[in-house]
Amino acid sequence: MSGKLVISIDGMGGDEGPSVVIPGLEAAHLRHPEARFLVFGDEAKLRAALDASPRLRDAVEIRHTADAVAMDDKPSQALRRGRQTSMWLAIDAVRQGLAQAVVSAGNTGALMAMAKFQLRTIAGVERPAIAAIWPTTRSESIVLDVGANTEATDKQLVDFAIMGAEFARAVLNLSRPTVGLLNIGAEELKGNEHVKAAAQALREAHGLSLDFRGFVEGNDIGRGTVDVVVTDGFTGNIALKTAEGTARQIGGYLREAFQRSLMARIGYVFAKGALDMFRAKVDPRRSNGGVFLGLNGLVVKSHGGTDALGFASAVDLAVDMAEGQIVSRIARDVQRLTFGDVEVPAGGREGTA
Amino acid sequence: MSGKLVISIDGMGGDEGPSVVIPGLEAAHLRHPEARFLVFGDEAKLRAALDASPRLRDAVEIRHTADAVAMDDKPSQALRRGRQTSMWLAIDAVRQGLAQAVVSAGNTGALMAMAKFQLRTIAGVERPAIAAIWPTTRSESIVLDVGANTEATDKQLVDFAIMGAEFARAVLNLSRPTVGLLNIGAEELKGNEHVKAAAQALREAHGLSLDFRGFVEGNDIGRGTVDVVVTDGFTGNIALKTAEGTARQIGGYLREAFQRSLMARIGYVFAKGALDMFRAKVDPRRSNGGVFLGLNGLVVKSHGGTDALGFASAVDLAVDMAEGQIVSRIARDVQRLTFGDVEVPAGGREGTA
Repeated sequence: MSGKLVISIDGMGGDEGPSVVIPGLEAAHLRHPEARFLVFGDEAKLRAALDASPRLRDAVEIRHTADAVAMDDKPSQALRRGRQTSMWLAIDAVRQGLAQAVVSAGNTGALMAMAKFQLRTIAGVERPAIAAIWPTTRSESIVLDVGANTEATDKQLVDFAIMGAEFARAVLNLSRPTVGLLNIGAEELKGNEHVKAAAQALREAHGLSLDFRGFVEGNDIGRGTVDVVVTDGFTGNIALKTAEGTARQIGGYLREAFQRSLMARIGYVFAKGALDMFRAKVDPRRSNGGVFLGLNGLVVKSHGGTDALGFASAVDLAVDMAEGQIVSRIARDVQRLTFGDVEVPAGGREGTA
Repeated sequence: MSGKLVISIDGMGGDEGPSVVIPGLEAAHLRHPEARFLVFGDEAKLRAALDASPRLRDAVEIRHTADAVAMDDKPSQALRRGRQTSMWLAIDAVRQGLAQAVVSAGNTGALMAMAKFQLRTIAGVERPAIAAIWPTTRSESIVLDVGANTEATDKQLVDFAIMGAEFARAVLNLSRPTVGLLNIGAEELKGNEHVKAAAQALREAHGLSLDFRGFVEGNDIGRGTVDVVVTDGFTGNIALKTAEGTARQIGGYLREAFQRSLMARIGYVFAKGALDMFRAKVDPRRSNGGVFLGLNGLVVKSHGGTDALGFASAVDLAVDMAEGQIVSRIARDVQRLTFGDVEVPAGGREGTA
């Protein structure tokens, strides 16, 4: 498989394991016939699932693993005892250079712990972050961190800005992504100390391939005010889950409204096509998958409860990222910025002779 | 006006001032004919607006003020120079005992600064919080803090739990509200130190009239998992604005979907009644108004951009709170709890002889 685009797959991850992973790979294969999949897991189960997807056969190579990480395993335990799991070995394939990215629908905490341990953070990056693709009124934005860390220093927020911008460049095809720091008011006086210091550093930085736009608020995320929204993992995770909860709540109200009367049910029949398009737009499977950024290797986390369509979206993302050479670009960008005294590489500052 | 229910009103607050405030008071008057309104502001403008609302005349007393706080005034400046403003004098009426609560649609930062200065925090409460009423699938919940403070210690989070529970008791008519701490995972290991310490204290506390249910996540807010969601003002403000943004975004998708084809437009006509009910459910005016808790007086903040219906909702809230005797109940509750060593008042622990 060398020389080709290879994606490593945790075949046992997620609530359903192979019965979702293999059909998901089949869907991804139709869109990316050039990609090969190195699938780790229980060989008998994977082969059984593969029998129903004959078109996929040539694109897949199975590596049998005896063990799997359970969805409720503690990350620390999985890290200590899980060296023969499909998750560990799938990540290991990236570490060894056998694959350019790994996709897992398994336990997020265990995946992050194993990925940090095996791949290590990029030199100059203190902490990895989980980035999410957020559908907006305008198109799509990147939000990070959505849960890798519970707190973030100003230096880490600056790293997240750089990482998020490179991710946006690779998957949203933007040459110079706009970046905003999530805060509780547009005025410079509001917000906590880390957010203010990070804003200061991003304003003073030169040579970065991003366009820093200052602070944004919670309602700016869905509006798509900036391409990349930077925040700590505590706030980002709560924002993401609050938005998901709000979407589900409104969907429930809407269903209820259409069942309320005969007229409404008739209306539903006429409007069904439009409503299906609406539903597709707010379908969480379309933007399935958080991405771990800041590590020496690409890791895509698919939702544990997703179906084949959702898993395929996560694989799409892994392909886009592998082709975008994100890791080396992040490594280069973080070297350009020193926090505190803003260091400018020779010739990097605009307008110097 | 002594002996009666009196609500003090900042007649000049909000984007529109008297032209929204007076019609709002008229709507509130129909629901609460027993309430009297002490309205501070430009007498000529208030009288002009009042001429269009003759039914309201007997319920209103106007107090002329020469000055008003602008929506973009800095809180510190408003506090120093704004002693003749409608906002300052409306709060002062509560401080003097002339009114049981004050309602303003003005500048939030200035209102909080003035309210803290004039009313002071309740003995035993370190910081006031802003509470919001959040519509849920189940009914309504209270979320606090949504923006009074950018950070919160464990002690302050415990205070917020107590304040939120008393607020829920008064406005949602619950005898023993359930309370959850907003966090990024249900496992006890996740979350920052303050959140974990606050959970520990609430678990060990006795004699409080609330039912602590541990941690909740962002998607639990809209689901109505608990009656009161406690968080710091940074996270709470971002959650609130993210939910508002998501609702607006989905509303936009829906409008678009119904305009897409003739069939969909026909469907819309049949389903209009149901959709209007849906719209009423997600109407932000229905739960308009944040409430400042933890001060020696009741302060309700209406959205600055609201209309008369929204302003009336904020006045409803002030009436409910005034009748619920929230201030004295919070003062009693915080005295029962000592943070660190949990102190139990004599006879307060269940099962002791």
